[in-house]
Amino acid sequence: MKKIKTALISVSDKKNLKQLLNILTKNKVKLISSGGTYKEITNLNYKCLEISKFTGSKEILEGRVKTLHPKIHAGILNKRKNKKHIKDLRDHNFENIDLVIVNFYPFEETLKQTKRHENILEKIDIGGPTLVRAAAKNYNDVTVITSTENYSDLIDEIAKNKGSTSLDFRKKMARLAFSETAYYDSLISNYFNNISKTIFPKKKIINSNLIGKLRYGENPHQEAALYSTNKEFDINKIHGKPLSYNNFNDIFSALKISKSFPKNTGTVIVKHANPCGVSIKKKNIDSFKSALACDPISAFGGVVSCNYKMTKNLANELKKKFFEVIIANGFDKISLRILKKKKNLRLVDISKFHIKDFLNITSFGNNILAQTEDKIKVTKNSLKIVSKRKPSKKELDDMIFAFNTCKYVKSNAIVLASDKSTLGIGSGQPSRLDSCQIAVDKMKKFTKKNYKNEIVAASDAFFPFTDGIEKLIQAGVSAVIQPLGSINDKKIIKFANDTDTILVFSKTRHFRH
Amino acid sequence: MKKIKTALISVSDKKNLKQLLNILTKNKVKLISSGGTYKEITNLNYKCLEISKFTGSKEILEGRVKTLHPKIHAGILNKRKNKKHIKDLRDHNFENIDLVIVNFYPFEETLKQTKRHENILEKIDIGGPTLVRAAAKNYNDVTVITSTENYSDLIDEIAKNKGSTSLDFRKKMARLAFSETAYYDSLISNYFNNISKTIFPKKKIINSNLIGKLRYGENPHQEAALYSTNKEFDINKIHGKPLSYNNFNDIFSALKISKSFPKNTGTVIVKHANPCGVSIKKKNIDSFKSALACDPISAFGGVVSCNYKMTKNLANELKKKFFEVIIANGFDKISLRILKKKKNLRLVDISKFHIKDFLNITSFGNNILAQTEDKIKVTKNSLKIVSKRKPSKKELDDMIFAFNTCKYVKSNAIVLASDKSTLGIGSGQPSRLDSCQIAVDKMKKFTKKNYKNEIVAASDAFFPFTDGIEKLIQAGVSAVIQPLGSINDKKIIKFANDTDTILVFSKTRHFRH
Repeated sequence: MKKIKTALISVSDKKNLKQLLNILTKNKVKLISSGGTYKEITNLNYKCLEISKFTGSKEILEGRVKTLHPKIHAGILNKRKNKKHIKDLRDHNFENIDLVIVNFYPFEETLKQTKRHENILEKIDIGGPTLVRAAAKNYNDVTVITSTENYSDLIDEIAKNKGSTSLDFRKKMARLAFSETAYYDSLISNYFNNISKTIFPKKKIINSNLIGKLRYGENPHQEAALYSTNKEFDINKIHGKPLSYNNFNDIFSALKISKSFPKNTGTVIVKHANPCGVSIKKKNIDSFKSALACDPISAFGGVVSCNYKMTKNLANELKKKFFEVIIANGFDKISLRILKKKKNLRLVDISKFHIKDFLNITSFGNNILAQTEDKIKVTKNSLKIVSKRKPSKKELDDMIFAFNTCKYVKSNAIVLASDKSTLGIGSGQPSRLDSCQIAVDKMKKFTKKNYKNEIVAASDAFFPFTDGIEKLIQAGVSAVIQPLGSINDKKIIKFANDTDTILVFSKTRHFRH
Repeated sequence: MKKIKTALISVSDKKNLKQLLNILTKNKVKLISSGGTYKEITNLNYKCLEISKFTGSKEILEGRVKTLHPKIHAGILNKRKNKKHIKDLRDHNFENIDLVIVNFYPFEETLKQTKRHENILEKIDIGGPTLVRAAAKNYNDVTVITSTENYSDLIDEIAKNKGSTSLDFRKKMARLAFSETAYYDSLISNYFNNISKTIFPKKKIINSNLIGKLRYGENPHQEAALYSTNKEFDINKIHGKPLSYNNFNDIFSALKISKSFPKNTGTVIVKHANPCGVSIKKKNIDSFKSALACDPISAFGGVVSCNYKMTKNLANELKKKFFEVIIANGFDKISLRILKKKKNLRLVDISKFHIKDFLNITSFGNNILAQTEDKIKVTKNSLKIVSKRKPSKKELDDMIFAFNTCKYVKSNAIVLASDKSTLGIGSGQPSRLDSCQIAVDKMKKFTKKNYKNEIVAASDAFFPFTDGIEKLIQAGVSAVIQPLGSINDKKIIKFANDTDTILVFSKTRHFRH
């Protein structure tokens, strides 16, 4: 137990001070402060000594140097039981500081408020982190509080221990303190990297805020949590059971796809992080029906992502089936009433969600692979028609749709499509030929409409041989889009021409693992 | 351009100081230092003023407080063109400090050297990071150097600019400085989280060191890099073309599997981050042959991971096929000579590699999913035999092998096996039935040996209906292992008994996405 006799307070966030000052004063703690905090404390009618009076040094450089003083730091850093330290303090007529309450002005807020580099620099706190780090290092003797969220803990601790704090409490607060200073400097570091356009700095620090612990990870024996580099989370669950790790994984996969659609159109159904049906139609309800028709068996228990506002008609369709999660750009009142009847069904409103440009990170042990997002979407202009037979506008549009869908399917990926709807998706195979087979089997199994001569196929990477393309053509595919680059490209073009197939090369590959 | 007149030097790493001191002295820079650095500078015969003499304040608390002094920090932090600042400095008789050279004792080293918490605490540097942060904030006027690696840059800069540094240079050094302080505090923060067993702290900071930029990411239009939380990288490429992003991704997938094998046994072949053949045999060369036999077409261009030392006989086998990467626990001389004949083939020595327990991280935009590794391996004791027919020891061993292999196959995963070798792997399907079909198709296509009544099947999650299991039995599977938990578990047991199939339940699920 350590009695608190003197406290140094310097807070950017001035809320909830009163209760804290109350208990400190009751326990006869001497308060030291400066600037805005000093004003706030005296305004609240508590007695407080100005830091400059405490140190005997004037605050200089417009406040840049006030606490960077031996009297302050010796007061914090001295080991109370060390004879040399006791002597040093006595010789210099210094006194102990037992409690340090400091919070920083959030650097994220600074970045939101101004783009002016000079103003941002000015906001970088030097004295504050030094006080916090010194107090945290010496937590054996000193209590450090770095967030208003811990005020009530401190109040309880002091009340319980009659003006003292326990070692456990101080150690926990020190742990939180170092996470604050690490977080603060990583924001500054990332800011400097951003403005100098350094994507891969020598030391990469990824800072994130706990959004929430999850019940478990991919499997029940794994612990898991969701973090965000933002403090707020813009994926809003408005109904149903808590979202699981696998739900989030599927939601993220689904959002990547549905956010790539034209505004307020298109539906995708995801299962095991892979799309099992994708469709873009003028009528949104048609896009759902088409996405479902692609593989209604896999869709069972899946995640439906609607890139538009949910309305009554679709809600009535959705309620007939079993899905785990339904995502939409908002839900109208009637649709909510319909869907909320399903107690467990998770409804997720993403009308406030914006996909952000951020590095793609995957870890293996202590290794991390970082890459920029796969952002390329092919358009008419980025394609090369290499077959004799030329595609119609519809075929070209369908090929572009199929190829852009490929991007989100785990490699090797084959997507069969017509009318901007998938008819068969072959995913996750080490052999491209097998992915063709799976896509074709799906189509044969579920496609009722006769798409004669209107089916296009997309491959996420080039066909190394003609066997894959042959399998597709045999199944009724009349147009194929694939990246160029195989040593057999010429053979493949010849094969397309021999079979009167449309062949289009893209310059982009879309591996996804 | 800013002329350097006074430099403060405080370095833990004392190498390469001489050249630097030489140019500073030539340019008449006044040097200030203390402790070990002061000794080193005077030993090297350069003139230097002790910090305590500069400040007029004695070093106290055994060195805990020496630079935390207004004279030092005003000297660093003052804006040279600000009239108030100029006046403050004049009034206090303070002087400018234009160059700050500080490096910290690496916290990683501290953690390696001692487990004693007190000693670790003592090593936390308070003064150093404050000097660095102050100098970096005021880079408009001050140069900050935080690594010996930048000494030569500073020497060049000073030489080029006759004792001055440019704004660009100072800004770059400030960027590096903040990455050092962020990195340093994140190590401390993670240390505190580790000792308190906090896996998911409120603020999570992941710090990593750039191992190397990669030519590109999963696709040529994506930029990519490899990082490690360690400074050293223990995956050692000893021959062949540079490793690509996809190579690393495959290598990591392969190592997860091969490191789960019994010591110095077992081979796995990986393609597109999925295993396409896994085998554990007494003779290592047999394990390679069996792994290859599972799907020789997919294995083409894959990653072969040998959990043993490479020798001549296997090297002779390997050279007959096209692989991108061969991993082994070392390579003997003859095998190296054989394999190095293939110029492009990447040989990776992992004899120094140790898989570390670290959180599994995946990102989506600015969201991060973090989970503990899937570490459970089933054994005889964690299984429940639920069918009337009981497995032989061989069948049980094969089921355990197949189920543990499932863990590394993307979901839904079905693994067919016999003699501790995979015969068919169905992966990455949204429908479990489809994964069954793929596994069966693979087996039918490539298995030549007659395995009548000896084929086992594993499923990473429970069968929701009997259709999947039925497909497996029709293909010759005589024993099935799966997690329990379906509402149809009883029906599945009945189905197994009706078909005289062995059925074993595990309590563990192994989703992997």
